[in-house]
Amino acid sequence: MKKIRVAIVGYGNIGHYALEALLASPDMELVGIVRRNGAADRPAELAGIEIVKSIKELKDVDVAILATPTRSVEEHAKECLALGINTVDSFDIHTQIVQLRRSLDAAAKAGNAVSIISAGWDPGSDSIVRTLMQSLAPKGLTWTNFGPGMSMGHSVVARSKKGVKNALSMTMPQGAGIHSRLVYVELEEGFTAQQVYDELKADDYFAHDELHVIPVASVDDCRDMGHGVLLERKGVSGKTQNQLFEFKMKINNPALTGQVLVNAARAAMKQKPGCYTMVEIPVIDYLPGDREELIAHLV
Amino acid sequence: MKKIRVAIVGYGNIGHYALEALLASPDMELVGIVRRNGAADRPAELAGIEIVKSIKELKDVDVAILATPTRSVEEHAKECLALGINTVDSFDIHTQIVQLRRSLDAAAKAGNAVSIISAGWDPGSDSIVRTLMQSLAPKGLTWTNFGPGMSMGHSVVARSKKGVKNALSMTMPQGAGIHSRLVYVELEEGFTAQQVYDELKADDYFAHDELHVIPVASVDDCRDMGHGVLLERKGVSGKTQNQLFEFKMKINNPALTGQVLVNAARAAMKQKPGCYTMVEIPVIDYLPGDREELIAHLV
Repeated sequence: MKKIRVAIVGYGNIGHYALEALLASPDMELVGIVRRNGAADRPAELAGIEIVKSIKELKDVDVAILATPTRSVEEHAKECLALGINTVDSFDIHTQIVQLRRSLDAAAKAGNAVSIISAGWDPGSDSIVRTLMQSLAPKGLTWTNFGPGMSMGHSVVARSKKGVKNALSMTMPQGAGIHSRLVYVELEEGFTAQQVYDELKADDYFAHDELHVIPVASVDDCRDMGHGVLLERKGVSGKTQNQLFEFKMKINNPALTGQVLVNAARAAMKQKPGCYTMVEIPVIDYLPGDREELIAHLV
Repeated sequence: MKKIRVAIVGYGNIGHYALEALLASPDMELVGIVRRNGAADRPAELAGIEIVKSIKELKDVDVAILATPTRSVEEHAKECLALGINTVDSFDIHTQIVQLRRSLDAAAKAGNAVSIISAGWDPGSDSIVRTLMQSLAPKGLTWTNFGPGMSMGHSVVARSKKGVKNALSMTMPQGAGIHSRLVYVELEEGFTAQQVYDELKADDYFAHDELHVIPVASVDDCRDMGHGVLLERKGVSGKTQNQLFEFKMKINNPALTGQVLVNAARAAMKQKPGCYTMVEIPVIDYLPGDREELIAHLV
């Protein structure tokens, strides 16, 4: 059977784990990795792998996994789609997904290719569960509870504050979709936790949640890529009240994102040209293997 | 906007709850109900509703919800599909789903119609979650834990035994996909719980699970349509071990089945001719409303 030929664009945390998931997939092969500096600084684990500066240097790529920062997804996707290469990404700015989908839908159709966006775990696999839960009890409330786990965005903001040498912001679930933030900081000399607290509270990123600033000797020693989510829905099926649903996971964050990207790359091969979010694709398309065997095993 | 015109075939428990879900759906209207005896014994809640003996007596039906016993689903589906009417059912014999799908796929294509089979909660919405979990951690184990809740099939078998006036079999989850059975029985005079236990243990339906037979004065007083499930997966994303997933629900059993059937009826309008299980349909198709608005809200 012909394998799906996949390129990975960007090789940070997500790229690293996407590569692992790709190499573990029986139906795929790696064509190469695209990095801004090409093969200039090659990590040991990439020995023997083709590393290039542009996707155009790779041959017969079916799908590009865009493991780039969210803000450069659109640009990279458009470049690939214009070349007729399918793309998948884990674009994670919830409020801009509809807009990105419109923009890439036109680009995908023009390039006769498929783009699957926001294919991570939230947005991504959680979105599938939220949509399913909404359908099972059309009236009701859904709560998405994140954590405990590191928030990259909040950590970056915390690190930018005066008196902060290094920082790690943990998202802590308080239930019913409410979260608090625990910010672990290495303080610069002469600064106090209270000063950092005041700085953070003045920032819109932290202003609305309960906040605790905790000084530590080493932020690196606190770092762990575990994360979790609890999706809850409580609602009405037909006329019947109090239908209760929960989806919970405890996962290595970038490892799950890498796996979802690989699943989406597979699914991209089965769609008509256009741009899709994960809820617009049959879940069976994320899996390799014979359809009837999957149905016999999973349905 | 033109509403989806739906008929319900069969009016037992599932038909009753499917009707409630249908009437609560903004995008649907009821054409009528098909019952073997027609309008002969009309329940009070069906006042003013057209009740007929054959689907052919109803006009312009888009979708028929087959709320008949599982074993007669195929026959009813073929009749509807030949008339170009889409069908949905909650066929629940897991080992025969692939075969039913083949048979109805041919019938659906011949009738230029769509059939969605096994659209209940298990098989059905649980199948979507199992498939998603499998994709998130391709190597690993999934456990489906049912209950506590009534098993219709086991209750029927228990009622057929000597010395049993009435019986209700509860499925109790023991964890890791193992179940025990609690059978509540009204005994006929001169019979003991031990005798019934021995009878049941000799039946393949009960032979393999832990079993308890509990005599009660009134089985009807024990009856409750609540049910539940816990789906668990523990597996590997890429190379990363110990990724943990859980989906749990506590629900009114026929109310959820009725809602899923209505969702599938809606989704049937959006597919190409053929027969599908729920995992082969994008989850967004189960919901009414504008696609971009749903994406903005749920993704």
